[in-house]
Amino acid sequence: MRIDIITVVPEILKSPFEASILKRAIEKGLVEVHIHNLRDYAQGNYKQVDDYQFGGGAGMVLMIEPIDKCIQELKSQRAYDEVIYLTPDGQTLDQKMANSLSLLGNMIILCGHYKGVDQRVRDTLITREISIGDYVLSGGELGAAVLCDAIIRLLPGVLNDETSALTDSFQDNLLAPPVYTRPREYKGLEVPEILTSGNTKAIEAWREEQAQLRTLKLRPDLLK
Amino acid sequence: MRIDIITVVPEILKSPFEASILKRAIEKGLVEVHIHNLRDYAQGNYKQVDDYQFGGGAGMVLMIEPIDKCIQELKSQRAYDEVIYLTPDGQTLDQKMANSLSLLGNMIILCGHYKGVDQRVRDTLITREISIGDYVLSGGELGAAVLCDAIIRLLPGVLNDETSALTDSFQDNLLAPPVYTRPREYKGLEVPEILTSGNTKAIEAWREEQAQLRTLKLRPDLLK
Repeated sequence: MRIDIITVVPEILKSPFEASILKRAIEKGLVEVHIHNLRDYAQGNYKQVDDYQFGGGAGMVLMIEPIDKCIQELKSQRAYDEVIYLTPDGQTLDQKMANSLSLLGNMIILCGHYKGVDQRVRDTLITREISIGDYVLSGGELGAAVLCDAIIRLLPGVLNDETSALTDSFQDNLLAPPVYTRPREYKGLEVPEILTSGNTKAIEAWREEQAQLRTLKLRPDLLK
Repeated sequence: MRIDIITVVPEILKSPFEASILKRAIEKGLVEVHIHNLRDYAQGNYKQVDDYQFGGGAGMVLMIEPIDKCIQELKSQRAYDEVIYLTPDGQTLDQKMANSLSLLGNMIILCGHYKGVDQRVRDTLITREISIGDYVLSGGELGAAVLCDAIIRLLPGVLNDETSALTDSFQDNLLAPPVYTRPREYKGLEVPEILTSGNTKAIEAWREEQAQLRTLKLRPDLLK
């Protein structure tokens, strides 16, 4: 898998890809992540990438020209399965979408910033609009990092223990059951006895029940 | 506002707070963000913060003791309005929640990692569980960055133009209308005539209509 991220604030995206699971996935060669500074595709001494919006109003808008240039250059080098724009009015990311995106080969992710991006970019260059949730962020950069993390951890070989991702919340439309680790007792708080019983079958049944109960209590919508 | 983030991977959180709007908000003194390495509260030469889960199964679980120590130390220094745990089975973050969290004084954010955190932490130390969306990430760090961004940009004085946040998507349960900037024509693609008409009233009406249409098309659930 290859992911090309286009942004006006490449600095934000530095550390998320240089630590933990994403770093290891890149080092193992399971994914390539390339970050492109939109300013490198801008013209003139000022390297202008944004401008005031037509019709007036607060906030700057990313211009179509540098974005078009950057995307065309990438497309001239290889084929892309999707050109994704991260925006609060896109289709809301969920685990099912992450699963399906993890099967793609190459994708471009455009990070919006300021007030957004010229609508003509969305109408003509973008193949898919995704939102990571119903809230507004200062830019698409953190959304891109979230999207990459959600996808990349699903690639075979990325997690040390492949069964780990399969027992996550949402993979079977259930929230994960509670987990406990040592010490067995801490300031009077004890671990449920069943978990230290050694009875694998009973533990499995308890976890299934707890997952059902927790989902029913916290997210009954998932059970519909 | 003061935000204390507790994490086992502090490196991930470096760049998001050192760029763009979050950086400026911190420099202006509008918010303090302190990142705490959970390992600093762990015992022994190995600085152990996680262990296998009781009852067997894949994935490591964060232990209660270092987390308890870190939270107690912070609480001994000041009062906190919320101790937040980021988890996919928490209450889903939306703009309304971001608005209300932006009114708090001090908060602690605990980032889960690996398979999760000992349930006793959630039962006794956490006051609020939040999810940034229905998908699983390698850890709570990117969620913490997202939550901080969503909140901090709402603090008075953070955005250059205060009206900018008020016209964002979701603030009135509507998606934002399309925006356009120069050039007026690009490769045959033109800006809607009304936006260059200079008729402020007509532009406002067009934007309202477009916001309604876009919400109806993409997110009819918001209109309910």
